Amino acid sequence: MPQNRFSELDREMRSFVLTAHCVDRPGIVSALSTTIFNLGGDIQDLQQFGDTITGKYFNRIVFKAPANVSVDSAKGALAPVMERFDMDWTLRDQTQHSKVLILVSRFDHCLVDLLYRWRAGELAMDIAGIVSNYPRETYSNLMLGDLPFWHLPITKETKREQEQQLRGVIEETGTDLVVLARYMQVLSDELATDLYGRCINIHHSFLPGFKGAKPYHQAFDRGVKLIGATAHYVTGDLDEGPIIEQDVERVTHLDTPDGLVRKGRDIERRVLARAVRYHLDGRVLLNDKKTVVFPE
Amino acid sequence: MPQNRFSELDREMRSFVLTAHCVDRPGIVSALSTTIFNLGGDIQDLQQFGDTITGKYFNRIVFKAPANVSVDSAKGALAPVMERFDMDWTLRDQTQHSKVLILVSRFDHCLVDLLYRWRAGELAMDIAGIVSNYPRETYSNLMLGDLPFWHLPITKETKREQEQQLRGVIEETGTDLVVLARYMQVLSDELATDLYGRCINIHHSFLPGFKGAKPYHQAFDRGVKLIGATAHYVTGDLDEGPIIEQDVERVTHLDTPDGLVRKGRDIERRVLARAVRYHLDGRVLLNDKKTVVFPE
Amino acid sequence: MPQNRFSELDREMRSFVLTAHCVDRPGIVSALSTTIFNLGGDIQDLQQFGDTITGKYFNRIVFKAPANVSVDSAKGALAPVMERFDMDWTLRDQTQHSKVLILVSRFDHCLVDLLYRWRAGELAMDIAGIVSNYPRETYSNLMLGDLPFWHLPITKETKREQEQQLRGVIEETGTDLVVLARYMQVLSDELATDLYGRCINIHHSFLPGFKGAKPYHQAFDRGVKLIGATAHYVTGDLDEGPIIEQDVERVTHLDTPDGLVRKGRDIERRVLARAVRYHLDGRVLLNDKKTVVFPE
Amino acid sequence: MPQNRFSELDREMRSFVLTAHCVDRPGIVSALSTTIFNLGGDIQDLQQFGDTITGKYFNRIVFKAPANVSVDSAKGALAPVMERFDMDWTLRDQTQHSKVLILVSRFDHCLVDLLYRWRAGELAMDIAGIVSNYPRETYSNLMLGDLPFWHLPITKETKREQEQQLRGVIEETGTDLVVLARYMQVLSDELATDLYGRCINIHHSFLPGFKGAKPYHQAFDRGVKLIGATAHYVTGDLDEGPIIEQDVERVTHLDTPDGLVRKGRDIERRVLARAVRYHLDGRVLLNDKKTVVFPE
Repeated sequence: MPQNRFSELDREMRSFVLTAHCVDRPGIVSALSTTIFNLGGDIQDLQQFGDTITGKYFNRIVFKAPANVSVDSAKGALAPVMERFDMDWTLRDQTQHSKVLILVSRFDHCLVDLLYRWRAGELAMDIAGIVSNYPRETYSNLMLGDLPFWHLPITKETKREQEQQLRGVIEETGTDLVVLARYMQVLSDELATDLYGRCINIHHSFLPGFKGAKPYHQAFDRGVKLIGATAHYVTGDLDEGPIIEQDVERVTHLDTPDGLVRKGRDIERRVLARAVRYHLDGRVLLNDKKTVVFPE
Repeated sequence: MPQNRFSELDREMRSFVLTAHCVDRPGIVSALSTTIFNLGGDIQDLQQFGDTITGKYFNRIVFKAPANVSVDSAKGALAPVMERFDMDWTLRDQTQHSKVLILVSRFDHCLVDLLYRWRAGELAMDIAGIVSNYPRETYSNLMLGDLPFWHLPITKETKREQEQQLRGVIEETGTDLVVLARYMQVLSDELATDLYGRCINIHHSFLPGFKGAKPYHQAFDRGVKLIGATAHYVTGDLDEGPIIEQDVERVTHLDTPDGLVRKGRDIERRVLARAVRYHLDGRVLLNDKKTVVFPE
Repeated sequence: MPQNRFSELDREMRSFVLTAHCVDRPGIVSALSTTIFNLGGDIQDLQQFGDTITGKYFNRIVFKAPANVSVDSAKGALAPVMERFDMDWTLRDQTQHSKVLILVSRFDHCLVDLLYRWRAGELAMDIAGIVSNYPRETYSNLMLGDLPFWHLPITKETKREQEQQLRGVIEETGTDLVVLARYMQVLSDELATDLYGRCINIHHSFLPGFKGAKPYHQAFDRGVKLIGATAHYVTGDLDEGPIIEQDVERVTHLDTPDGLVRKGRDIERRVLARAVRYHLDGRVLLNDKKTVVFPE
Repeated sequence: MPQNRFSELDREMRSFVLTAHCVDRPGIVSALSTTIFNLGGDIQDLQQFGDTITGKYFNRIVFKAPANVSVDSAKGALAPVMERFDMDWTLRDQTQHSKVLILVSRFDHCLVDLLYRWRAGELAMDIAGIVSNYPRETYSNLMLGDLPFWHLPITKETKREQEQQLRGVIEETGTDLVVLARYMQVLSDELATDLYGRCINIHHSFLPGFKGAKPYHQAFDRGVKLIGATAHYVTGDLDEGPIIEQDVERVTHLDTPDGLVRKGRDIERRVLARAVRYHLDGRVLLNDKKTVVFPE
């Protein structure tokens, strides 16, 4: 197989991920791509979406630039264009990992899966740590190693206080993304609002079907022929946040509620892992109550 | 490939489909299979399901018997066993086709698909005819040939009267199964109740998500990542009938409402066709608000 | 729902589809998008792919321009950029339909499906006509209406001559795309070569598994748990052409060879329809022995 | 939800799994079910398959019997019927776990997944131990705990000797099932033959496509639109053993060979886990070069 043409060059290049959205109008691609070109940049990937209903424009551009172009100098070069189009935008060095805090409760399958993928290099993240309302021993079968762990038990009475502790952890660790990996606790409106767009939950049903508690039992009672799971950004409005990813599996009359739970674990872990991956790679942009997810 | 071992024999054998359900208790399979054996029968296929939650037993048995065993004589031989277990049961000659009445409205994709599959021999049915609230000319691109067609227009005011006409058609044609192939009209409670278990509807969403009108627009607004369709038995309780079959397809932010409608047409037609086929083959048994569907 | 922001404007705008590929190097997007902007154009959709292994660049751009910009004037404006990057490119008015010739044999399920989708407006094509080695009466259940039909029977002896007739039909109808909708005849190397990139075949297996004849019987004998179909561009090298689309369905030990054929019909028709649709929309670009398919 | 009707009774009942196959002829179900009934048994699940092409009959029956019925006494009661029909059969106490030996090499994703499912109670097995051609330290991120581990390095020269050691491990541990969880070594014909029907391999392609080495690279080169994995019983004929389970995922031109490998890991682990589970539950029966897999 021939060598990647960039392989030589790559050593001296820095890779950037740019995401942007604004009101759509002619000239955006031209302005952005020309600015990148003038910076000595080479566009590796460009995906865009013009929402013809809301009139909004979204894009994600991956480009390489000479290693002497820092994030700050690239931002400086792009700023005037961004201002001209009144863009909401982010730019980051692609090798820069996000810090992810994983919240978990009694069920550990999503945690196990995220840890495995992280170790296998599938997820561009550093783990800021793990928070659980169960003690560390609960996860003794997992190799948590020296990952920071906070045991933050919670009761109705201590909810407010516990969230304060959680906020403390998020702040002190410099967490970029909070993942509710079957955390089973509802965040307060205030915290959900403050984390908007950087907190992903996995709901164990194919939303909007079977909101609320015990969705597999609801699915069993209704006799559906497929069950699913949904990863979404958390909002104050429970199970109504913008959907990032969903998937389903076929079930039959033979599946007991326990069988649905078992099949569901598989769906949950792959749906959550995909959503986290897409988010980390800058592929997910918020479009009001929905998401734009640029495919990989 | 070796010849089917039954091919010789088959010419002189009659094939029966037996479905039965009752309260589960030991000895059912033994009693049924022994009766069939004593009848000179040979079981081709036997599927059963014991619902451990409701304590009900369901089965479907396909068996061959000498050609001189009529449906009536087989029924006579089976009756004592059925009585002993207080079974709800049906027996029919497998070559006997059901009479199916197809109700349709402006969208013809499900009708087109059912007609194609019927002509291709995929569906063990005779078409009793087609009922529409649109005139026959609406379907001039379809080869309706000499299939009976009733144009039964409907308005709020004439709904009761139109249903009387519909009942007349069902009766005079000896219809076994009514298929609402995107009929777009809600049956009255009375008619839904009278047709219970022999009237299948296709709903253009993955129930219980997006009940009611314009489900694809609801799905678009919610930003789901998969859309689906659901075939179910019709009940007075709209979109709540026992589900027979469901399927989904992946969608993205690129799909407009029109795009969802287009993708949906594909899902609807295959889901409805499967449900009708399963019903015609005696694979679907009602289990309270759910179904048992024995796989083919 | 808010109005499409372009709805007013759209009446006076013309929509273009531009596809291009060349050796990848910096500046392509900038040059193209700036040229389009200077033409008064507004990019609606831009998808690109840089193949890091072969070093080739591919894109598809949909843009709108004032109605007074003709295809020729747009081509004139773009030509210098295209020359600079040594691009292989096409530009067409998006409302301009391709002329499609459908070749069919005894099995009509793909033909039926293409005709239905064409009538439903799912495929941006005009049907140049239908060619079959069976007479028109074979398809009497289909509403061929006044579609041109050529009965071109074929035998080993007349193959060369029949292909000459076929070439004649392609030429006189100005056919843009030839679709082998279960045509069951192998094109000669010469014809396959001449039609390269504009002739799509549906193979009834999940290639590269089960090449050649009777793939469903091969699949049955091997005991696979999924069967599939493959749409690909035709090359002289049978069943080895660039793959455009594939799909599968689950099968079990219960499926007879006839059952596989039945399930296969469903897969074939949807895989072929998708491939044809992608081709017509300019989403498929050849990348040596593979394809780039920009998602819709 | 109502209680399981058997819950009271269950404490004093023993659950058996019976699998059997023979030449098909009338009376089998009657004879078996009557014998079970006379034993005081209650059939919980009965699935059967009559292969009309080979004329062979297969079934799997789960039944409960009073706790005083031992496996041996049940076998004694069933033996005469089994003899009469010349059946190949097995009977086991459903709570009796199989002993499974997992063979692994450098890639640990399947091992990780099997261990997780085992701990979660999804797999009715005891782990006899793990064999690898890599040292135990390779898996330090996994909680192997006190699971027996054999490091059996292998070279061309030591292959015969290493297999002798492997045979020793299988024997001394009383292994029922050997799982090649990406073991990457080809078993000798002799060992493959000796383990026939109790050794499962995961092949990282959708067989029969891409046999042999580096299947993901083969798939990349061919440009397929779906990749898959296949779990099969091992035979001397490499990649030709009876297929137990397969699955696929969609890929596009964007997927690099590394991307295929990553997606493939997900497919491999779920396909292998399903195959192992089906085997352990007695759902997989060999039918010459194919399998009968009774659905759960």
